[in-house]
Amino acid sequence: MTSTLVTGISELVTCDPTLGDGSPLGIVHKAALVIEDERVAWVGEALHAPATDTQTDLEGRAVIPGFVDSHTHLVFAGERSAEWESRMAGAPYTGGGIATTVAATRAASFEKLRAHTQSLVEQMRAQGTTTIEIKSGYGLDVVHEVLILEVARDFTRETTFLGAHVIPAEYAGDREGYVDLVCGEMLQTCAPFARWIDVFCDTGAFDEAETRRILSAGRGAGLGVRLHGNQLEHGPGVRLAVEFAAASVDHCNHLSDEDVEALAASDVVATLLPGADFSTRAAYANGRRLLDAGVTVAIATDCNPGSAYITSMPLCIALAVREMGLTPAEALYAATRGGARALHREDVGRLSVGAYADLAALDAPSYLHLAYRPGSQLVSQSWRRGTPG
Amino acid sequence: MTSTLVTGISELVTCDPTLGDGSPLGIVHKAALVIEDERVAWVGEALHAPATDTQTDLEGRAVIPGFVDSHTHLVFAGERSAEWESRMAGAPYTGGGIATTVAATRAASFEKLRAHTQSLVEQMRAQGTTTIEIKSGYGLDVVHEVLILEVARDFTRETTFLGAHVIPAEYAGDREGYVDLVCGEMLQTCAPFARWIDVFCDTGAFDEAETRRILSAGRGAGLGVRLHGNQLEHGPGVRLAVEFAAASVDHCNHLSDEDVEALAASDVVATLLPGADFSTRAAYANGRRLLDAGVTVAIATDCNPGSAYITSMPLCIALAVREMGLTPAEALYAATRGGARALHREDVGRLSVGAYADLAALDAPSYLHLAYRPGSQLVSQSWRRGTPG
Repeated sequence: MTSTLVTGISELVTCDPTLGDGSPLGIVHKAALVIEDERVAWVGEALHAPATDTQTDLEGRAVIPGFVDSHTHLVFAGERSAEWESRMAGAPYTGGGIATTVAATRAASFEKLRAHTQSLVEQMRAQGTTTIEIKSGYGLDVVHEVLILEVARDFTRETTFLGAHVIPAEYAGDREGYVDLVCGEMLQTCAPFARWIDVFCDTGAFDEAETRRILSAGRGAGLGVRLHGNQLEHGPGVRLAVEFAAASVDHCNHLSDEDVEALAASDVVATLLPGADFSTRAAYANGRRLLDAGVTVAIATDCNPGSAYITSMPLCIALAVREMGLTPAEALYAATRGGARALHREDVGRLSVGAYADLAALDAPSYLHLAYRPGSQLVSQSWRRGTPG
Repeated sequence: MTSTLVTGISELVTCDPTLGDGSPLGIVHKAALVIEDERVAWVGEALHAPATDTQTDLEGRAVIPGFVDSHTHLVFAGERSAEWESRMAGAPYTGGGIATTVAATRAASFEKLRAHTQSLVEQMRAQGTTTIEIKSGYGLDVVHEVLILEVARDFTRETTFLGAHVIPAEYAGDREGYVDLVCGEMLQTCAPFARWIDVFCDTGAFDEAETRRILSAGRGAGLGVRLHGNQLEHGPGVRLAVEFAAASVDHCNHLSDEDVEALAASDVVATLLPGADFSTRAAYANGRRLLDAGVTVAIATDCNPGSAYITSMPLCIALAVREMGLTPAEALYAATRGGARALHREDVGRLSVGAYADLAALDAPSYLHLAYRPGSQLVSQSWRRGTPG
């Protein structure tokens, strides 16, 4: 077991309110941190740092927990820039373009999908992301849904079975048949490769009864529940998420007062996807309203080739501050500890003793610069499980 | 004289409408390009490429002209993240914070200013920018205004004397005295280091009569005219820009129909600064209205520590598409050829024979990806004056 002292930290954001300034970000100034193997072994003021085997001097940089990107669709082939261009010219986003990606993904090999996913994971890592959830949902048949999850498992333990992304073309006349398949053979085959089940519960995707069937089946197969809800229109998504005690309900663009109250009274995290709102030209989800009601909020990229071809959590933070009413502190918390909560994880998204040593150093004296300097490559180095790279 | 053939270009954006598809972007597919020393010597379909000394294969990447960032304030010291944070919490942007940067800049050495500018220029270059205009305006006394321009001259020939940025604190009771200084000793000392004169003509900065005096003096000293106008409120900026046949009037958030008509009937470029609108939480300038009226539009970063700490032209393009009503093609044109027009330059912002070989290769098959994948590091390599780096 080797120990490394990381010193020269101008501002250490721990996301542990029992530390430092006592704010939700638990900020320690002139800080140091000790990594032992994969974990954080000590945090505090540099003056009081213990002796260690080796040292790294960050020369006045800020350090934050690695980002927890709790909503991505990273395993796909092809791209949809033409669809995006037409949307920028005024065409609405309906989710209909998902079929394009399904066709390209089905046609791709395991190796091709794996290599492409790897390149996106590397882009994310370069921007400070150290935990990534990955959904299936571009296979929509048994063989390809499980293939996608197998690729995803090479990169994360946070894999999500999203057979219920949309109804594939071959089942256009037989919705019930597709839901049977999702709840039956597809679930049975995919469950060993997934931690979560997810349903796109919205106009043009799955309705309340279908969502209820699929979530029940997934829960019965031992999967945790999460949900795409209330993106395109107001619908039953948030209500179902609360009813099923989901870890998270994602998008949340169209919420009634009852939805917000139900979320606030529950442990369900509201995951906001600023990149999707940016790239679909939607009205941004109202993060301020959720936070003011006491809801736990996460921010994720939603990285996918249709509605959000975005790998940068710093950009999502900047958009959440500019457009969703989050303070810079709330946005950083949502992108780290919030994401961890949306995945029911205590070991990531914070930098206190016992957590994984997943951290990012910024070429800046404060985390504020993440949104103050949007579009910059501010992450100078990151560590995952104590390993730099 | 060595010649290099750049091949494997899936899509070559020349910004020369006499080439390729005949659109304003002049796109050539399956293209190649020959660089001879600093210049473009040949462009066309790869099939017809001439023999050269050496070859570079871009393996299917798109190539665009290097970005022309025609409005920056790159030479400064200090940062203003606290001011930015208060603005995100609702405080308005008034330009008042400029004094903070003036104090920090006056306190900095030539070497420190130069090193900081260099780091920003490198960040910009990594994002594909090959021509940068740099303004003074954080010195506001003779010694420091000229010092800033000397630093700027190490990085660009496009230097702009902006002694008329705001009235410095020591002249708060003597506006006329400061305008005398700007038009007198300061201009005389700075003019040899500047190509342009600029005035921040807006509420809280300089009024119509002052602007007129300063621009006249600058023109008399042989400088070209450009103007900050109509950012914070409707004012005389655009009208004066047209009257003085300025190369560009920058910001353009508050325009009357008369302003738009006057711009359309003139050769003045309207330079939009999406990063400033993003970071000041302003209503975005209406690019669509200007383009529909026939005005030439440029996009620039406005990089400065107060209202737009942004170095990424791709982010500005994405914002212009999302928020200003530009098509992806119009936004790319504005960030290349538009910027060149705003600087009265024919040798940059386009990739046709005779122009400088300033180009950027993208890790993507089409320029569309610049805004389709915001926040990504899409520029894989760039060349300036024919030299990669």
